[in-house]
Amino acid sequence: MTDEFEILSKKLEQRNVNVEQTIKKLENFKIGTPSWGYSEGGTRFHVFQDPYAARDIIERLDDAAQVNKYTGIAPEFAIHIPWDKAESYNEIADYSQDLGMKITAVNPNLFEEEEYKYGSLCNSKPEIRKKALEHVMECLDICKILRAPYLSLWFPDGTNFPGQGDFVKRKKWMLESLKEVYAAMPDFVIMLLEYKFFEPAFYHTDIPDWGQAYLLCKKLGERAKVLVDLGHHPHGTNIEFIVANLVDEGFLGGFHMNSRKYADDDLTTGSLNLYELFLIFWELIKGNADDSRKTGFMLDQSHNLKSKIEAMIQSVLTAQEVYAKSLTIDRSRLENAQENQNIINAETCLKDAFFTDVNPILVRFREGKGLPQDPLKAFLDSGYKAQILKKRRL
Amino acid sequence: MTDEFEILSKKLEQRNVNVEQTIKKLENFKIGTPSWGYSEGGTRFHVFQDPYAARDIIERLDDAAQVNKYTGIAPEFAIHIPWDKAESYNEIADYSQDLGMKITAVNPNLFEEEEYKYGSLCNSKPEIRKKALEHVMECLDICKILRAPYLSLWFPDGTNFPGQGDFVKRKKWMLESLKEVYAAMPDFVIMLLEYKFFEPAFYHTDIPDWGQAYLLCKKLGERAKVLVDLGHHPHGTNIEFIVANLVDEGFLGGFHMNSRKYADDDLTTGSLNLYELFLIFWELIKGNADDSRKTGFMLDQSHNLKSKIEAMIQSVLTAQEVYAKSLTIDRSRLENAQENQNIINAETCLKDAFFTDVNPILVRFREGKGLPQDPLKAFLDSGYKAQILKKRRL
Amino acid sequence: MTDEFEILSKKLEQRNVNVEQTIKKLENFKIGTPSWGYSEGGTRFHVFQDPYAARDIIERLDDAAQVNKYTGIAPEFAIHIPWDKAESYNEIADYSQDLGMKITAVNPNLFEEEEYKYGSLCNSKPEIRKKALEHVMECLDICKILRAPYLSLWFPDGTNFPGQGDFVKRKKWMLESLKEVYAAMPDFVIMLLEYKFFEPAFYHTDIPDWGQAYLLCKKLGERAKVLVDLGHHPHGTNIEFIVANLVDEGFLGGFHMNSRKYADDDLTTGSLNLYELFLIFWELIKGNADDSRKTGFMLDQSHNLKSKIEAMIQSVLTAQEVYAKSLTIDRSRLENAQENQNIINAETCLKDAFFTDVNPILVRFREGKGLPQDPLKAFLDSGYKAQILKKRRL
Amino acid sequence: MTDEFEILSKKLEQRNVNVEQTIKKLENFKIGTPSWGYSEGGTRFHVFQDPYAARDIIERLDDAAQVNKYTGIAPEFAIHIPWDKAESYNEIADYSQDLGMKITAVNPNLFEEEEYKYGSLCNSKPEIRKKALEHVMECLDICKILRAPYLSLWFPDGTNFPGQGDFVKRKKWMLESLKEVYAAMPDFVIMLLEYKFFEPAFYHTDIPDWGQAYLLCKKLGERAKVLVDLGHHPHGTNIEFIVANLVDEGFLGGFHMNSRKYADDDLTTGSLNLYELFLIFWELIKGNADDSRKTGFMLDQSHNLKSKIEAMIQSVLTAQEVYAKSLTIDRSRLENAQENQNIINAETCLKDAFFTDVNPILVRFREGKGLPQDPLKAFLDSGYKAQILKKRRL
Repeated sequence: MTDEFEILSKKLEQRNVNVEQTIKKLENFKIGTPSWGYSEGGTRFHVFQDPYAARDIIERLDDAAQVNKYTGIAPEFAIHIPWDKAESYNEIADYSQDLGMKITAVNPNLFEEEEYKYGSLCNSKPEIRKKALEHVMECLDICKILRAPYLSLWFPDGTNFPGQGDFVKRKKWMLESLKEVYAAMPDFVIMLLEYKFFEPAFYHTDIPDWGQAYLLCKKLGERAKVLVDLGHHPHGTNIEFIVANLVDEGFLGGFHMNSRKYADDDLTTGSLNLYELFLIFWELIKGNADDSRKTGFMLDQSHNLKSKIEAMIQSVLTAQEVYAKSLTIDRSRLENAQENQNIINAETCLKDAFFTDVNPILVRFREGKGLPQDPLKAFLDSGYKAQILKKRRL
Repeated sequence: MTDEFEILSKKLEQRNVNVEQTIKKLENFKIGTPSWGYSEGGTRFHVFQDPYAARDIIERLDDAAQVNKYTGIAPEFAIHIPWDKAESYNEIADYSQDLGMKITAVNPNLFEEEEYKYGSLCNSKPEIRKKALEHVMECLDICKILRAPYLSLWFPDGTNFPGQGDFVKRKKWMLESLKEVYAAMPDFVIMLLEYKFFEPAFYHTDIPDWGQAYLLCKKLGERAKVLVDLGHHPHGTNIEFIVANLVDEGFLGGFHMNSRKYADDDLTTGSLNLYELFLIFWELIKGNADDSRKTGFMLDQSHNLKSKIEAMIQSVLTAQEVYAKSLTIDRSRLENAQENQNIINAETCLKDAFFTDVNPILVRFREGKGLPQDPLKAFLDSGYKAQILKKRRL
Repeated sequence: MTDEFEILSKKLEQRNVNVEQTIKKLENFKIGTPSWGYSEGGTRFHVFQDPYAARDIIERLDDAAQVNKYTGIAPEFAIHIPWDKAESYNEIADYSQDLGMKITAVNPNLFEEEEYKYGSLCNSKPEIRKKALEHVMECLDICKILRAPYLSLWFPDGTNFPGQGDFVKRKKWMLESLKEVYAAMPDFVIMLLEYKFFEPAFYHTDIPDWGQAYLLCKKLGERAKVLVDLGHHPHGTNIEFIVANLVDEGFLGGFHMNSRKYADDDLTTGSLNLYELFLIFWELIKGNADDSRKTGFMLDQSHNLKSKIEAMIQSVLTAQEVYAKSLTIDRSRLENAQENQNIINAETCLKDAFFTDVNPILVRFREGKGLPQDPLKAFLDSGYKAQILKKRRL
Repeated sequence: MTDEFEILSKKLEQRNVNVEQTIKKLENFKIGTPSWGYSEGGTRFHVFQDPYAARDIIERLDDAAQVNKYTGIAPEFAIHIPWDKAESYNEIADYSQDLGMKITAVNPNLFEEEEYKYGSLCNSKPEIRKKALEHVMECLDICKILRAPYLSLWFPDGTNFPGQGDFVKRKKWMLESLKEVYAAMPDFVIMLLEYKFFEPAFYHTDIPDWGQAYLLCKKLGERAKVLVDLGHHPHGTNIEFIVANLVDEGFLGGFHMNSRKYADDDLTTGSLNLYELFLIFWELIKGNADDSRKTGFMLDQSHNLKSKIEAMIQSVLTAQEVYAKSLTIDRSRLENAQENQNIINAETCLKDAFFTDVNPILVRFREGKGLPQDPLKAFLDSGYKAQILKKRRL
């Protein structure tokens, strides 16, 4: 491997990329995994049972800690209320810390109670809007206790049929509530506003695109930022353009990473759109936003057919590998080609990086942190699964 | 209304459309409603409770009979096994008959058992393929008892990730089983093979389009026909072209009618794609396939936000109204315009018909059959809902 | 027809719609037709010859005046520079006025000169950006002379390959130029900023969606507004939502009306998306923006297979008819249904209006203005086509 | 590089891949480039001038021979009649041979003559269908003279508006003509039937999908096969599934390779869909169809912004590189994982191969054939461009 590392170092030198600095960049690329990714999930057709599935916040934290233990880059954790409801969030915070984990995002659930049948913050009934607002406020309180930086908001609100609702009234209702939430936010909290093209509403969605999320954030203040879920766009959307633009405007908050081929398929990150992911990372690098202290990198995938912890390890590693590739782009050659309108040269800068085998860098990174070289295998060999099976299903 | 009827009659005469014959055509346009449309349904996010929801095949038949009672055109019924499992299908057949209903389609369920996690007829494990085949055979047996003409097959089979399965092996497994089923089919049974672009599988689906359904039917025999679900296509697909083509080839079996804007949204029929529905009916008329004795017209919609029976009445009436509009097209003028390549004239034939208010015809049709002129109101006024609420939720 | 008018009047009364007021609303619904719609147009595969095609701004104005003469609602005209370049725009203004026409929109052309191969305002070469800016300024000057209210900007700028350009630099370049243009705009001019999902660029487009157009307008000032071309969205986009939102924000400038099934197909208005068009008009009515003095209604369609003037007459009439339908919605019943979350009732308000035969209203409107009842026939009978054929092709 | 080759060899050995055999496989992977790719091409908005553009079949062959000279894998050539019309095709055949080139495909042009405004083989006018058929027959004659194996048919036929044409009549007309063509085909000729989702027709296309192409081929005979253009599908289509299926049915004829993000963008191969291309090659390998003697690999891309010859070299090399990657898949491990339903393992087999740096193999391949290691640079250094500029533009 030393040979390979040296061969790669030399190649990258020719691209004006310093390998040591690249490895350092990897230090600040951390990924948050979602509590709900460790539980059973499924499609509208069926939720398949999983005997290993975690049943509460403690078990989910345990599982997430495993992902972090073997990959070294997943110390962040996103929770979903009420799924992760706990009696004492202070104790949860302590428990997390002991595991080397940090809860960074709190997500309210506004779609599972009967009252939300016709919407939450956009419901035409004031009492239901009030209920929804109170739940968001409850989540903000949890943020405060946990000192979680992200109040991460996704609204299922929308309508299924023309005429069902009034778009403009609904927007006003949403804004009204969001302003109350924003006003109550302490300085360390950022409101992430997620957009989604469709589903669960099938005629209109109240925040269907980055434009509407940005418009609302703009009205709220500088600590309201847009969350980009990679699966929430119409086909063909150039996501890297949206990302570059939001970074430039100061409105990018973070990501929900996953893969999709059709709709919001919630497949594991890097299953299909590998080159797209690479191009997104490149925009973040250029915009100086490829650092978890600036941008929240969170997985949001349901991958109901893969074993959960393994799928998470696979996803985290794929994201890291693709990010590492994007760090090997010859920036000055690229800018030069752009200026001279030499498209083939410009494109070659990207493709050479994308096709670069960055494994020697990843090997070195893991060596430096005492991590196993094959994190998935190490996890599978650890006996953890047998242990939880016993505990969770007996 | 008599005035309106006469005004309309004269207008249609000018289009070479005879009103009396049009009303007669409506006689043979019957729609089947699906048992699962009377139960609770939802998205992957939540299934909202409905105190009126039917709980078994008897209650579902009761509800469907209401739809037929007030609309006069919905005497057909599709069941889903095991959801509609009954101890004696002979008794069910009698019960249906007493209600003036006929069970016309039997649908197997190949997605709700744990064994089907990685597929049913396309599963790499022979024992699971066997189990799936046996279930389809069980459904065929039910067809035989009920003398239901349609064994209606939709397979959730597909994969979520590149590499997960082998496309060709899976096709062979599916064909193998279908051949066994086909061989066991009595003369009066038609196998309907449904295609779907995606979901619940998100990387590939084993029968993703009409082409694959047709290819398989062709290998099976002339009583295997394609079922077109209006929501199972990629955006932009010209469904009326597919329909015309399948009719011409003798391979159109029937429809699952619904509406969609994004994916397989399963909204109520005619919510969005009204003109498309009209154009589809027109192809059926031209191909002599607009008769329920030749083509199965079935609803397949989940419309989880609308009250179920009302939604079904609305859908059935919308389909009938749009069909009636398509019956008012001036065929000879259209053909003439097509031959002369006068696009505006040709298009005008269609739009004039689409924009024709056919209510006077529908009024006359309902008068002739002793049906209420406002079926939805008549149903709501009937007290049926209060009655089932009491029975089903106490 | 008097009978039909009275029958309709009574129906609409029950919907709280006053027929006389409806006819008055039609007075303020004017449509602009585009000069380029009277010339030859085509696809990338071929531009078919049309012996009737207009060859310069005078001939195009003549043709547009015909559309207005027979429909009574198309007195506005959009020009495209340099296609409509004239020696004296003052003379053109006089000529228009004599025809009863008004040039309301001036569109620069930034895609036909060799220099624009890699972009216009977003080109990496400053000298080309300068040239593009100068051309826009030239168009603004023409606006001033003609007192045309709309400087209507669409940019072909974008890239075809990853790496070809830098998104953020390009945005800055565009904004820089637009600020100069905006600063030079007299009070009566509104800058319309058009967005387009893709084409002619196939990897990224610099203003791909309403969000980016809005973001730029917001930075420019209140006389920069968004132009919505009905064919410039990804599949499934809820355009009526975008429209309602822009109206509410005060950022809707106008429309380029046309139809599409796949991409930016530029088919004639109302060819396919009739119900969508109806729903868009409804949002305008609710937002008080269904008046040509507030919102620019312009056609932008190439319809290369239809005869041009006829196609324009057909489009204008279809738009008017669909608009008239949307004026028959029972607003209070709809709002009531929305508040009570009765989806079927709400939807029925829309569908009843959409399925209403509004011809008696249109007949009355045309009578009142001395217009022919069949504008297309009247035009075809007028001998105009024979006259221009002789003039233009001999 | 020897080090790298050895490191790679060892890695591949562990995947049960023999490097020497892999290099041999590359021998039989040849690509055809299209004559029209060396001429000016553009969008419907503009065709940008290119001083290097080839003007006739001789110049196009010269350019294509350059691509072959430096890459060693592009000896095949596709022509388009009448663009490549020549006085003596025998002389053209000799000229090709002297250049080391072979004309393998002849494409008729059925969209550039005024008569084809409303269609070619599907035109409602018999005399135009006859003209179109004669042109296809002319192309078949050219095939015979050149002994070109592929009569490659793409039809622009379709309609723009509902009602414009009769789908079924049109299908019959097309089939009628195709049968005549098929009957006239000598044994060595294969008819390739290409499908396309839309464009230049925007309402319906007569062969919109693989299903319709397959259906027609099936009616014609075993030497009618489907041509897959990578840009001719709806969004989300799983092309590798279609390919696997067609190979299995014996109906895959060949490819038009290119890239797309939106519609039929005709970007250079591998610009965007790199992983998809890899997955397609893998299906060909499994189906034993990854050999140019069995499957026609042709580029069809217009890439109007890149320099033409360079773009072709880039495309050919990218296709080869991606193909080489797909040759490094550990097939037995993959099959084993599939059988055991271990999705992560299965997927890893593919991703490991996709992320493998196969450059050492390509280096060895080029060494073995005396080819330059940087074909693009070698071409640019050769002076060819200066030479043609002088010749073609003076």
